[in-house]
Amino acid sequence: MKDFFRVCGVLVILSACLMSFTPPCDGGNILVFPLDGSHWINMKVLLVELHAWGHNLTVIRASNSWYIEEKSPLYTSISLTMEESMENYFDDFVKENIKREGASSLTVFKLIKNFNSMVLEVHKLWVNMTAKLFDDEKLVKSLHDAKYDLVLTDPGVGTGVFLAKYLKLPLVLNVRWITSGEGHFAIAPSPLSYIPAPGSGLTDKMNFIQRVKNILFQSVIEYQQRFVLGPAYNTLCDKYIEGECNIMSLLQEADIWLFRSDFVFDFPRPTMPNVVYIGGFQGKPAQPLPADLEEFVQSAGEHGVIIMTLGTLVNALPEDLADEIASVFAKMSQKVIWKHKGKRPSTLGNNTLIVDWMPQKDLLGHPQTKAFVAHGGTNGVQEAIYHGVPVLGIPLFFDQFDNLLRLQERGAGKILELAHANRRSFEQAINEVLHQDSYRQNIQRMSRLHRDQPIAPMDQAVFWVEYVIRHKGAPHLRTEAYKMPWYSYYSLDVLLVLMTAATVLLLSTFAVFRFLCCRQRRKSKTKQH
Amino acid sequence: MKDFFRVCGVLVILSACLMSFTPPCDGGNILVFPLDGSHWINMKVLLVELHAWGHNLTVIRASNSWYIEEKSPLYTSISLTMEESMENYFDDFVKENIKREGASSLTVFKLIKNFNSMVLEVHKLWVNMTAKLFDDEKLVKSLHDAKYDLVLTDPGVGTGVFLAKYLKLPLVLNVRWITSGEGHFAIAPSPLSYIPAPGSGLTDKMNFIQRVKNILFQSVIEYQQRFVLGPAYNTLCDKYIEGECNIMSLLQEADIWLFRSDFVFDFPRPTMPNVVYIGGFQGKPAQPLPADLEEFVQSAGEHGVIIMTLGTLVNALPEDLADEIASVFAKMSQKVIWKHKGKRPSTLGNNTLIVDWMPQKDLLGHPQTKAFVAHGGTNGVQEAIYHGVPVLGIPLFFDQFDNLLRLQERGAGKILELAHANRRSFEQAINEVLHQDSYRQNIQRMSRLHRDQPIAPMDQAVFWVEYVIRHKGAPHLRTEAYKMPWYSYYSLDVLLVLMTAATVLLLSTFAVFRFLCCRQRRKSKTKQH
Repeated sequence: MKDFFRVCGVLVILSACLMSFTPPCDGGNILVFPLDGSHWINMKVLLVELHAWGHNLTVIRASNSWYIEEKSPLYTSISLTMEESMENYFDDFVKENIKREGASSLTVFKLIKNFNSMVLEVHKLWVNMTAKLFDDEKLVKSLHDAKYDLVLTDPGVGTGVFLAKYLKLPLVLNVRWITSGEGHFAIAPSPLSYIPAPGSGLTDKMNFIQRVKNILFQSVIEYQQRFVLGPAYNTLCDKYIEGECNIMSLLQEADIWLFRSDFVFDFPRPTMPNVVYIGGFQGKPAQPLPADLEEFVQSAGEHGVIIMTLGTLVNALPEDLADEIASVFAKMSQKVIWKHKGKRPSTLGNNTLIVDWMPQKDLLGHPQTKAFVAHGGTNGVQEAIYHGVPVLGIPLFFDQFDNLLRLQERGAGKILELAHANRRSFEQAINEVLHQDSYRQNIQRMSRLHRDQPIAPMDQAVFWVEYVIRHKGAPHLRTEAYKMPWYSYYSLDVLLVLMTAATVLLLSTFAVFRFLCCRQRRKSKTKQH
Repeated sequence: MKDFFRVCGVLVILSACLMSFTPPCDGGNILVFPLDGSHWINMKVLLVELHAWGHNLTVIRASNSWYIEEKSPLYTSISLTMEESMENYFDDFVKENIKREGASSLTVFKLIKNFNSMVLEVHKLWVNMTAKLFDDEKLVKSLHDAKYDLVLTDPGVGTGVFLAKYLKLPLVLNVRWITSGEGHFAIAPSPLSYIPAPGSGLTDKMNFIQRVKNILFQSVIEYQQRFVLGPAYNTLCDKYIEGECNIMSLLQEADIWLFRSDFVFDFPRPTMPNVVYIGGFQGKPAQPLPADLEEFVQSAGEHGVIIMTLGTLVNALPEDLADEIASVFAKMSQKVIWKHKGKRPSTLGNNTLIVDWMPQKDLLGHPQTKAFVAHGGTNGVQEAIYHGVPVLGIPLFFDQFDNLLRLQERGAGKILELAHANRRSFEQAINEVLHQDSYRQNIQRMSRLHRDQPIAPMDQAVFWVEYVIRHKGAPHLRTEAYKMPWYSYYSLDVLLVLMTAATVLLLSTFAVFRFLCCRQRRKSKTKQH
């Protein structure tokens, strides 16, 4: 009976697709400006799909790009000469961050300062490169001549956003972070009473002190946007764009926001009609493992396997911590696969396999995998949700704490902060995640909810890119209310006028009454006399 | 090539459905509390679909229901004895509204008063009926025993919402209007600077005066909710519901809002993750007309056909106006099909066919149909958009002006107010809609946008009803921030504390400086002496 419904369902959806809805457009011509590093990993997943749908892709990259290949069967590339590599900035930043000096206020302040100067330097690099691009008449002419249908960009840096405006093309964002802070804050009302500022380490349920912290945190981000990052981009507005603009107003003009999140992962919040949630769009069923890895995994028997990775930016933990973790693993009955590029820990057990690289998605989807020790990057967390594997998170920087917090809040993961990580705390935490049933139950519930969508997030992403091509934009889905002055947007001018009117009315009524009373009293007095 | 993409698209969607996404659930057990009148028409469309998907439906209706049949192959019904018929209230209201006394302030005030007292009476009727339902122990026991999966209701009156809370069942709303005002205002941030209050006749682009009007309008609605309708429902909260509640807090607890609108029709605005837009879900390709009607339509030749209807509540226009309209039609080269139940207009031409009922959707979808003269009810307007037929609207009451305004703003329709309708204005308006190409182009663009959705609105509706059954609710999609006191929700308490702190800091710095200066001055003076 269940199968009957399943088949009927598919047939109805199929017929609906065939009968009433527009088919995918013929191959479009898409100009892509991706962000380097881990962001490229998921942009590439989207490009693979768009390529498979017959779209023609052109990718703009830095000549010294870190991850983005010059030659690819997926796309044609345009390489721009960049003086310095982004990688250098990140390397220094990463080294500072994993020093484990303890979480004193001084350290936190230093880390924030480091982060801000790193971010500013990276944005300045890109602003300079964008200016050079716009000054290169030959290149600009070739971009015009190519007659692109739209610009697809990750607005973590602003170049793609400016490019769309400069070439007068529709704009689709593949986004979670904009130049400053989280994407939603640019377009959707975000009451700070229940929407945690990014990086604040808060949830959607805050007490008074937490709400104070949240507002202060968001103020710092606003300050950074208004007085540090914003001005860095203003030179582009002044020199190359007709009419007034700033990076925020250009973001607000985007046609579609493909948002790398969803409300299984994130806390519910107001959103806008042109935001499409594609969280976990990279998720797909696991493929078989290479034979040797499969053999290792199976050799774990009923105890299963733990996998551990700290992402793409960090090669290895500090040696002492790596040794402590290795000694904990050595005592466990599980087998462990650990992506680790540093010095081989001296305490490594026979049950632990050190690897340079691992097929992370396929391992997460393997029924033998019992827990995932991870840094909390968006890709890894989304894959853990997709496959329903509980997470022990060791957040290092950026949004990693916030990502892991969302799992911890749902009882689907546990956070171990680097500053407090040692043999004892790690052992306790990994055993809790492995043996307390609720972790597995909760992440598997998240997995069921995440997979239960009317269409897959990747199909959504492709649909809306093609929608923008078909209709040459989607202005009807975005409000232009942001163009109002802020006091009008918040109706402060109207409230001021209404309150003044009410006060004048009240005072004049009072004055008239007083006048009448006085006259009456004077009359009575005259009578008495 | 296009066909190739079409087939590929469908196959990918098909495989995505088969591989990674949950199949429709087995037949659920759904308790339905619909709203009578035209709202029942589209609730029934949804019930037909849910029935086809194998769900078991129970409909609660008033024993003297206006539209909702007691016996139906779609559902089992439960009839509640109601002392008075809603129809009586509406009849008086309709008669007052189509009197055409001109739009003086006095008339407008009278109409608003009429509307408010009619609304309050209708709500009171339902509050009494709900109380009687809850007092009927046998009925309540049978509702408990039936083990429903969810309550599906139109929250135009609150009974279904209370029923879900009383029976502790998940709640799905088929909604555009809640007990007071438009649904979004209950859950999504709604800045009054660009979101027009329902009934205000405003758009999303307002000048200062219009923004003042909008705030005043919304204040009246809030007043009505807080001091008139709210209290009518509070008796139910006090007597039957555990813990504190009011109609607004119960609405905010709904799992899914199936919203009868979309952003092709409506102005863009903030929304929430549990709002699913199903605007135009009743739309489907036109069926062939009955032979005699088809013959009449074809006899119009190249000039085509105009169709006219004023909906379900109004049988006929005032006689004088009907005569004037008939005489305009008589002069036209088009043929006319007019749904009209009153006295046959004396000026009726040979080209005009008067009917009691017409297959409206099939006529709108007929290629011969050139214009639609309508009152602007949601169903008709959505069908006009689906089929791309320009509209000449004569709004009578409720949301009809607002609906038509959305077409007029997009250049897809024109409004002729009843107070200004006469032979000359009607002739001018109908000719403009017929012969000015932009009307047809604009509504056909709206039609293309409306039909271009990743899945059909009706499939969305069914999917999300089944989603709530599968997961026993959808609490992760709704925020609980509404439960905060209003001053916390708007962060006023935090701002007050921060401002006080800043003031104290400023004053103490000033005091310290003054103290130091004085001491310095005193010292110098002492020295001088």
